[in-house]
Amino acid sequence: MITLGFMIEVKGYAAHNASSPLSPFSFERRNLLDYDVMIDINYCGICHTDIHQVKNEWGRSNYPMVPGHEIVGVVSKVGSKVTQFKVGNQVGVGCFVDSCRNCDTCKKGLEQYCSSLLTTYNGIEKDGKTITQGGYSNKIIVDENYVLHMPENLKPENAAPLLCAGITLYSPLMKWNAGPGKKIGIIGLGGLGHIGVKIAHALGAEVSVLSHSHKKQKDSMKMGADYFYSSSDPKTFEKLEGYFDIMINTISANVDLNEYLNLLKLDGTMVIVGIPEKDSHISPYTLISARRNLTGSLIGGILETQQMLDFCSKHKIECDVELISIQKINEAYERIINSDVRYRFVIDLSSLKC
Amino acid sequence: MITLGFMIEVKGYAAHNASSPLSPFSFERRNLLDYDVMIDINYCGICHTDIHQVKNEWGRSNYPMVPGHEIVGVVSKVGSKVTQFKVGNQVGVGCFVDSCRNCDTCKKGLEQYCSSLLTTYNGIEKDGKTITQGGYSNKIIVDENYVLHMPENLKPENAAPLLCAGITLYSPLMKWNAGPGKKIGIIGLGGLGHIGVKIAHALGAEVSVLSHSHKKQKDSMKMGADYFYSSSDPKTFEKLEGYFDIMINTISANVDLNEYLNLLKLDGTMVIVGIPEKDSHISPYTLISARRNLTGSLIGGILETQQMLDFCSKHKIECDVELISIQKINEAYERIINSDVRYRFVIDLSSLKC
Repeated sequence: MITLGFMIEVKGYAAHNASSPLSPFSFERRNLLDYDVMIDINYCGICHTDIHQVKNEWGRSNYPMVPGHEIVGVVSKVGSKVTQFKVGNQVGVGCFVDSCRNCDTCKKGLEQYCSSLLTTYNGIEKDGKTITQGGYSNKIIVDENYVLHMPENLKPENAAPLLCAGITLYSPLMKWNAGPGKKIGIIGLGGLGHIGVKIAHALGAEVSVLSHSHKKQKDSMKMGADYFYSSSDPKTFEKLEGYFDIMINTISANVDLNEYLNLLKLDGTMVIVGIPEKDSHISPYTLISARRNLTGSLIGGILETQQMLDFCSKHKIECDVELISIQKINEAYERIINSDVRYRFVIDLSSLKC
Repeated sequence: MITLGFMIEVKGYAAHNASSPLSPFSFERRNLLDYDVMIDINYCGICHTDIHQVKNEWGRSNYPMVPGHEIVGVVSKVGSKVTQFKVGNQVGVGCFVDSCRNCDTCKKGLEQYCSSLLTTYNGIEKDGKTITQGGYSNKIIVDENYVLHMPENLKPENAAPLLCAGITLYSPLMKWNAGPGKKIGIIGLGGLGHIGVKIAHALGAEVSVLSHSHKKQKDSMKMGADYFYSSSDPKTFEKLEGYFDIMINTISANVDLNEYLNLLKLDGTMVIVGIPEKDSHISPYTLISARRNLTGSLIGGILETQQMLDFCSKHKIECDVELISIQKINEAYERIINSDVRYRFVIDLSSLKC
């Protein structure tokens, strides 16, 4: 157990319980350790996870809680042994800020599956008591091994959501070999789905979007989708039977997964990246009859996240965002719950000074 | 549409409806076509599928129905263009006797997934009307491309169940790379599971059996299992969390799949090969949190079935069978329903003459 010194004053917005609105909050972060980087935060994306955590919907929330894990900023100070970053570098922090570094998964660069993963907020620091606090704040201190280099050619506010939404889609698309000749179906066109369309398109795959209504059809074409299908039209499920190599299910609503699984061809794979509240009902026959796979995927490791950022840099992939001041955070949460965002809210942290 | 001539008199046992016992039945098979092989059947295994079909539990049964798709016999005649078999060869026939031969899956040697698959019984022949009849009979006529060479060093009565049960386990074990260094869990030690243990062991993997009680523990060790766990002991599910690379689920009873999925390590795969009556409930979180796969597998193609037979020949893998006369068929069905068989019934067709 280590002892952390606390002297860095930070301003942010926090939830103080599961039901009140978020409000201004001042707190301290640890002093810079040898391998730490201090980041002045400029932008932070709002992920649906933030809302689940704030409302304690997963039952493990600690308050006060400063959410936020799509963090972009500029290095303002570095610890004495930091080698990978310099003051002035544009950097990012995603969903986690440390892990055990010794287990098999850490060694494979799959830290996201480490059982000692330290999440960016609502996690417990190595001192065994301090709760981590996230990016709805003006500064953060993170070990350099968990910090990402942000591409200079992407607008930081449009790149911020890549740090969670982007890697969440990139990782399974890479693992299941999305690329030329492959037919990809993206289920749901929200914060996750819209980046999935852009990445899958840039990988050279044929991309179809399956969305409830036709409202987002035009947008999806601009993002690089080849086809758009309404999932409220039963003909969609007849027409596309056995069509896709890979489907990424980004929706957290409980839908009939069998209908969608049936759209996979022989050896096709559906990856769940959104967590529905309830268990899903699966027909084993649907899996057996065409050797279909159902699997899940959780964000990505640090190395792969950097590769994703470099890929997005190369292909100029930015997220479609609505920039808001921190004072609008509670309103933004309401709009996310009502699926009224195209396609991701990002907080401009300069508003904290107001 | 072709016309089939019928002149070959055959004796067998048939179901005449979904509820009566099977009884003696005489029928005709097609005359030998150019590429056909006539087989004098010596043995036929009893698969649980036979019972589902006889009882019309899948709703697509045609009567009278002569079941049986684990057929071993000797070639007694060959068509004018047959090149792969000679009179006197010991041969086998599995779950299907033809397919379209032109689709992508057929071309890949995955005929079992062809949408025009002609099942060994209860299928409709290329004349569009004749119902295929299976191996509970003294003769069968099959196109040589759907006939297997049976290894000379295996007892034919002990090899018969390889043609369905054997390939059902071999195919997913190969696809998911069972072998040295891999930890395999076989769920259920019945007709399917017991062959799975033998094959996985011969592949050099570490094999664990998860079975309801400890009754079959001793047997499983003889088959090559390294470990045996009772699935009725809750500690099993604590102890083995995140342990297996591959699990093959052979049980058709509806169990809590999440409990078993939780036993897979990162990137582990559970293959369902038994079809439960009802849908399964899956927790997406269980899949996401360790990138676990849930998939299914259906028997195997002709080439892979031959490879499986050759593998079993090399490793002297035979099934544990209880040989019965055809007159005992209805009693055997009852015993299978009550899980009272170690581990597969095989019919000695010489009893048809009695």
